[in-house]
Amino acid sequence: PDLEAASAVATREAQLTKPAGALGRLEEITQWLATWQGRKQPRINRPRIAVFAANHGVAAQGVSAYPSSVTRQMVDNFLQGGAAVNQLVGTIDGDLRVYELDLDNPTADFTVEAAMSEAACAQAMAYGMMAVEAGIDVLGLGEMGIGNTTSAAALCLGLFGGTAEEWVGPGTGVSGEALARKIAVVDKAYALHKDACGKDALKWLAAVGGLELAAIAGAVLAARLAKTPVLLDGFVSTAAAAVVYAIDPRALDHCLVAHVSAEPGHRRLIAKIGQEPLLDLGMRLGEGSGAAVAVSLLRAAATCHSGMATFGQAGVSGPV
Amino acid sequence: PDLEAASAVATREAQLTKPAGALGRLEEITQWLATWQGRKQPRINRPRIAVFAANHGVAAQGVSAYPSSVTRQMVDNFLQGGAAVNQLVGTIDGDLRVYELDLDNPTADFTVEAAMSEAACAQAMAYGMMAVEAGIDVLGLGEMGIGNTTSAAALCLGLFGGTAEEWVGPGTGVSGEALARKIAVVDKAYALHKDACGKDALKWLAAVGGLELAAIAGAVLAARLAKTPVLLDGFVSTAAAAVVYAIDPRALDHCLVAHVSAEPGHRRLIAKIGQEPLLDLGMRLGEGSGAAVAVSLLRAAATCHSGMATFGQAGVSGPV
Repeated sequence: PDLEAASAVATREAQLTKPAGALGRLEEITQWLATWQGRKQPRINRPRIAVFAANHGVAAQGVSAYPSSVTRQMVDNFLQGGAAVNQLVGTIDGDLRVYELDLDNPTADFTVEAAMSEAACAQAMAYGMMAVEAGIDVLGLGEMGIGNTTSAAALCLGLFGGTAEEWVGPGTGVSGEALARKIAVVDKAYALHKDACGKDALKWLAAVGGLELAAIAGAVLAARLAKTPVLLDGFVSTAAAAVVYAIDPRALDHCLVAHVSAEPGHRRLIAKIGQEPLLDLGMRLGEGSGAAVAVSLLRAAATCHSGMATFGQAGVSGPV
Repeated sequence: PDLEAASAVATREAQLTKPAGALGRLEEITQWLATWQGRKQPRINRPRIAVFAANHGVAAQGVSAYPSSVTRQMVDNFLQGGAAVNQLVGTIDGDLRVYELDLDNPTADFTVEAAMSEAACAQAMAYGMMAVEAGIDVLGLGEMGIGNTTSAAALCLGLFGGTAEEWVGPGTGVSGEALARKIAVVDKAYALHKDACGKDALKWLAAVGGLELAAIAGAVLAARLAKTPVLLDGFVSTAAAAVVYAIDPRALDHCLVAHVSAEPGHRRLIAKIGQEPLLDLGMRLGEGSGAAVAVSLLRAAATCHSGMATFGQAGVSGPV
C-alpha cells in the first residue's frame, strides 16, 4: 500500500470545491485507488474485465437449471460479443478477456472426491495470474461455469462454517426439489472433505472449488503485486477471493466488492470478509457484469479528484 | 406511458442470453426507459444534467455553513468546468446546462413572509421547463443554492407532516447550535404558513420553496410531456419533485431517484414518494452529482438490452 499517495490525495481532497466529505463513498474510492495504484492522481483509463470459465463435475448432480454445455456456449457468446458483459464493457471503454480453463475436462464431482488435485489447483491459480498485465488501472474478476454457485457455497461452508442452507441459493434459478438437492450436495461435500481440509483454505479450494475459482484467487494475488486494484463481481468471484482472505484478511485490502448479488449467500459472504458492496442492484448473472457496472463509479471518483478546481483556483469562499 | 414499448422490451428481455431476471434492477430500468421514452429500443445517447441555481432569503438566519455569495461563485465554477458535476458529466459524455435564477434577488425570508409570490413561483416553474428539449434521452435535475436544504426541509414538513427534526439535516455541514437554529427556522416557517397553505402543494412551494426548487418542479412536468425520463438528484431536487407527487403520485412515474444522499431527510422523503434509490454512496453535494453518476446505470441497462444476443442467435441452450 502506498500511504504517501493516499496522503497526497487526502490533502488535495480537502481543497476541492465542495463541502468536506460531500462526495461520500467516491472519496473513499479515490483514496483506495491511490493506495493500491500507488498514484497521487489515481485514474481509470484502462479497466479490464477478466472472465474465467470452467466446468464442474458436480453439475452431474442436477444442481443447475442449465446443462453444462452452456458454459462453452456462453464462452462463444462472449467471444462473439453477444453477452451482457460485452455490452457493459463497451459502456466503460474497457478491455474484456475471456480465459477458458480446459472446458472439456470438468473438475471431479466433489461429492465423491476432491474437485482438483493440489497441483491442478495451483496450475489454475498460475493461469489466473496471467490476467494481470502492466498498464491495467483496475481488474474486474468474473466467471462462467455451470454448477459454480454450488462450488462457491461449499467453499464458503468450508471456510466460514454455518450451514449449507445459509450458503446455497438459486444460482441460475433452481428452486423446490432442485434447491433441496443442491443443499444436500453441499452438505455431503462438507462432510466428505472436512477432516482432510480442516482450517486450510487452499485445501478447501482444491477440494470443493473449481478451476475458475482457483484462477480468480490467483488473479487476486497477482494484482496485489502488480499494483492493480481489483473489483470482485458476484458470489462466485467473492468466494474465490475469500480463500485469500482466509489466509490473511489484509491480503484482500486491494479488492472491493463491486455489488451485492441477489444470490443470498453473497450478502453473508461480503459481511464475513468485512466489505461493503458498491452497488445493490439485484443482479445475479456473474460473468463480471456487476464489476463492469461498478467501474463507472471508480472512474467518477478518480475523475472528480483529478479534474476539480480547488477553492483557491475557483475563487470560492470556504465555510463561514 | 408507452405500454406497447414496455411490452416489446419484456418480450425481448426473455430471449436474451441470461437467466430470467439475472440483470435485476437493470431490467426494471430498461422497462422504465422504454415506457417513458416511448421506444422499443431505449437508449441513453444524449443525457443532460440541468443545474438550477438561486439564492434564499432564509440564509440570513445563519442556517448554512457557507455564505450566500458561494451560490454565484459555484455557478462560475460550473461555467469554468471546475466543479464535481463537470467532471461527472464528462465521464458520461453528457451535456451540462446551468440555469441561474436571478441570483442577485434572493427569495424573501420565509420565516417572515412567503418566499415567493405565486406569480414568481409560476414564472420560475416556466423557466425550469426550458431545460427540456427534443432529443434528450434522460434529464438529471440538480441544484445549487446556499440555504436550500432549509427550504427543502420546510417544504417536506409542509407536504408530508412530521417534525422539523425529522426533515432537517446538516446540509453543507452545520451541527450543534447552527443545526438547532436550522430546526427552529423550519418550525417557525411551518407555523407561519400552515394555515394559508393547508394541503395545497403549490402554495407550500411558493411559501417555503426557492426559485430553483420551483424550476425543478417545472422541469419534471415538462419532461413528462416531452417523453424524457428524469433522474432526481439529492434531497433538494427530490423535495421539489415531491410537490408534483403531492398533486398526483402518478405524475412522478417518469422519475427515478438517482441516489440516496447522506442528508438524513432524503431517505425519509424517498420512502414517502414510494421510490427506491439507484445508488447509496453517502454523497451529499447536490449540483446534479448523484444523477450524473446514475446515468451510467441507465446506459448499462439500455446497452445490454439493445446489444445482447438472444438464445437463438447465440446458439445457447435454455434451461433444462
